[in-house]
Amino acid sequence: MLKTYTYSDLSQEDIDKLVARNVDTSNAIQDVVVDIVDNVRLNGDQALKDYTAKFDKVELEKLYLDADDIQELAMTINREQQRALEIAFQNIHKFHSYQLRKERVVETMPGVKCWREIRPIEKVGLYIPGGSAVLPSTLLMLGVPARIAGCKEIVVCSPAQSSGKINGFVAYCLHLLKIEKIYLVGGAQAIASMAFGTETIPKVDKIFGPGNQFVTKAKSLVQSLTNVSIDMPAGPSEVLVLADATANPEYVSADLLAQAEHGTDSQAVLVSDNEELIEQVNSALKEQLAILPRKELASKALENSYAILVSDLTEGMKFSNAYAPEHLIIESNNWEVLSRQILNAGSVFLGHLTPESAGDYASGTNHTLPTSAYARSYSGVSVDSFVKKITFQHINEQGLEQIGSIVEILAELEGLQGHKNAISIRKKIVN
Amino acid sequence: MLKTYTYSDLSQEDIDKLVARNVDTSNAIQDVVVDIVDNVRLNGDQALKDYTAKFDKVELEKLYLDADDIQELAMTINREQQRALEIAFQNIHKFHSYQLRKERVVETMPGVKCWREIRPIEKVGLYIPGGSAVLPSTLLMLGVPARIAGCKEIVVCSPAQSSGKINGFVAYCLHLLKIEKIYLVGGAQAIASMAFGTETIPKVDKIFGPGNQFVTKAKSLVQSLTNVSIDMPAGPSEVLVLADATANPEYVSADLLAQAEHGTDSQAVLVSDNEELIEQVNSALKEQLAILPRKELASKALENSYAILVSDLTEGMKFSNAYAPEHLIIESNNWEVLSRQILNAGSVFLGHLTPESAGDYASGTNHTLPTSAYARSYSGVSVDSFVKKITFQHINEQGLEQIGSIVEILAELEGLQGHKNAISIRKKIVN
Repeated sequence: MLKTYTYSDLSQEDIDKLVARNVDTSNAIQDVVVDIVDNVRLNGDQALKDYTAKFDKVELEKLYLDADDIQELAMTINREQQRALEIAFQNIHKFHSYQLRKERVVETMPGVKCWREIRPIEKVGLYIPGGSAVLPSTLLMLGVPARIAGCKEIVVCSPAQSSGKINGFVAYCLHLLKIEKIYLVGGAQAIASMAFGTETIPKVDKIFGPGNQFVTKAKSLVQSLTNVSIDMPAGPSEVLVLADATANPEYVSADLLAQAEHGTDSQAVLVSDNEELIEQVNSALKEQLAILPRKELASKALENSYAILVSDLTEGMKFSNAYAPEHLIIESNNWEVLSRQILNAGSVFLGHLTPESAGDYASGTNHTLPTSAYARSYSGVSVDSFVKKITFQHINEQGLEQIGSIVEILAELEGLQGHKNAISIRKKIVN
Repeated sequence: MLKTYTYSDLSQEDIDKLVARNVDTSNAIQDVVVDIVDNVRLNGDQALKDYTAKFDKVELEKLYLDADDIQELAMTINREQQRALEIAFQNIHKFHSYQLRKERVVETMPGVKCWREIRPIEKVGLYIPGGSAVLPSTLLMLGVPARIAGCKEIVVCSPAQSSGKINGFVAYCLHLLKIEKIYLVGGAQAIASMAFGTETIPKVDKIFGPGNQFVTKAKSLVQSLTNVSIDMPAGPSEVLVLADATANPEYVSADLLAQAEHGTDSQAVLVSDNEELIEQVNSALKEQLAILPRKELASKALENSYAILVSDLTEGMKFSNAYAPEHLIIESNNWEVLSRQILNAGSVFLGHLTPESAGDYASGTNHTLPTSAYARSYSGVSVDSFVKKITFQHINEQGLEQIGSIVEILAELEGLQGHKNAISIRKKIVN
């Protein structure tokens, strides 16, 4: 089922083509998004109501649900489901709570003390996709680090369901996160509302969250138009499975399909040094696909996917590093050695019993990750994404004595006499 | 000299206007940059040579200097100057070397282990402005954290001097950083060359460095066109000085002028609860400005600058947080209490003997900082900027038992049967 390439047959150009992702170049989407963003900027709440009527087919009187609404909806899911969300919440909280640590003060010269302090980003906006696939897990993945960071204002936007509300799972996550309001706005208009602010929706400093192509375009557009920043550029989801003869083809196949079912533009790549395994995975894919509810999406995604036959997994890791996968699963007994060779990946799943779906929902790691080879330079979302690290320094008389002449020489050589004078005038008066 | 506003007289709208920075909306620059980027993408080295001839008035045979050239140039500066650069290098190295620490493994449930590992960004590009103001300090500020991070390839671009070479100070910094090549390309064309790669200049994963409006536009353009990322959006430099009756007006004035001399679009803001201090600073500005070599630039910058009279420095800090200054200097005996109130700033200088210029050159902190209120959501450059933090997880049989049913419930509620199956198939075979 998967097209198979032999690594040693590939030229550098072939490899470059294989690791290049589908890039959307649709100007139609661009034009629509520019219009929406402009309209929201100019007309605020009214534009949001109009778009919600048009796209979500819901007439809203007020644009949000409050604490009482959320509490009521949260109680519509059963205890087992609540419990699953609670455990996911706890694990995500536990893992993320270790990400920020106070740093030491460094005395770079006697009397010259430098350090960093952490401050939360004050106002953050979280976009939670809705419509066909509602993703309460995304709300946990963004809300938990925002809470740990201590962000003062957490604005959440998610499109209204046809009922004019949100579903109970999302409501239960809001309850766990102690977030008392959710704005019923979706798509590009949600991003624009958080970037510019409207009568009802506060302007934020940074916008987080996945979404369709309209949402993605809107994020990149408001990033260029305002001083609101975004978590990362987003593209279709992807997995690379590195597997050898020790792998179970049933597991590998299930992992590839878990990726493929996300959407037709998802990509699932298998890299193996074992031709037989690739064949066995292909058979397993056929069987598992037949009974998968989202088989149409998944089989289209597999058409854009492929397998690479390598001579050993170290060569496989070379390909993986060039691909820079969002998710990397190493299904080999040798995972410990191989993991040290990783240069580029979003999140890594080690061994035979560590499927990506564990990390998608509940193990504790974040599932908001760099796609489209952005893993070469971006990290996934973490508490780091919700804070700034501000540098501080304090210099005393001894420090001024130590560092003064150095700064004077360097300012002079850059031709910045004013910079020099800020030191000289202090030296003169102190001495 | 500084326009003075009284905080209590200002409406929210007035404050919004005061904290808004000059935003460049020049389409002319945009058009020029689009042309340059396109030409470099299509014509590579030839385009670079043409632009260097056109803009830098230098005909280059080869586009770089090698280790021998660099060594030779490095020896043209005197020992005192070398020594000043060495100490700056050491301090920057010392401060930045504490920024990366191994993180612990978190067992979120028995048998479910999660952790983060640090990997350097493989290929980074550093842009060092040249022309009228050559900035060897910027090379240290970018090169040192890149070296500490362990980046495999560090590409440095800086425009050629009229001699067809670089100046000795930059060469000496390259020597300290053990960088054996520098590409003689400046402006938007340098950014394009590192984003797309040419015959001579390697394509990188992330581009760092300040520059004029052409460089800034080119960075934002290549960020939207490629999957190369950039350090941060850049704008004109700025300082906010928070000072009370304990401040020395001569120091305050020198600090404001050190900022103002950068360029006509720089901004220097004074916030004080003491009317007399503001007056004294104005007198000092007049005197100090008269003898400043770059007084024309500085006096124009002061025209865009202002003072705010507040009732106390806690109110002053409120204004500062709204402004989100790149540099914040607190010239008050009470700096310890005030510094806890800081929410938004790039880098902070505490007390009477800690001028910004210490941090610009030599104290150890980084001088590549968020401007234009980006300090609300961005941190300055640090070793963090040159690495990715990759999440890892390993689950054993016990862990699968613990987490399996949770993932199954959550995958089910999101309608992703394939995600559920990646767990179920493992549970079935393991048991």
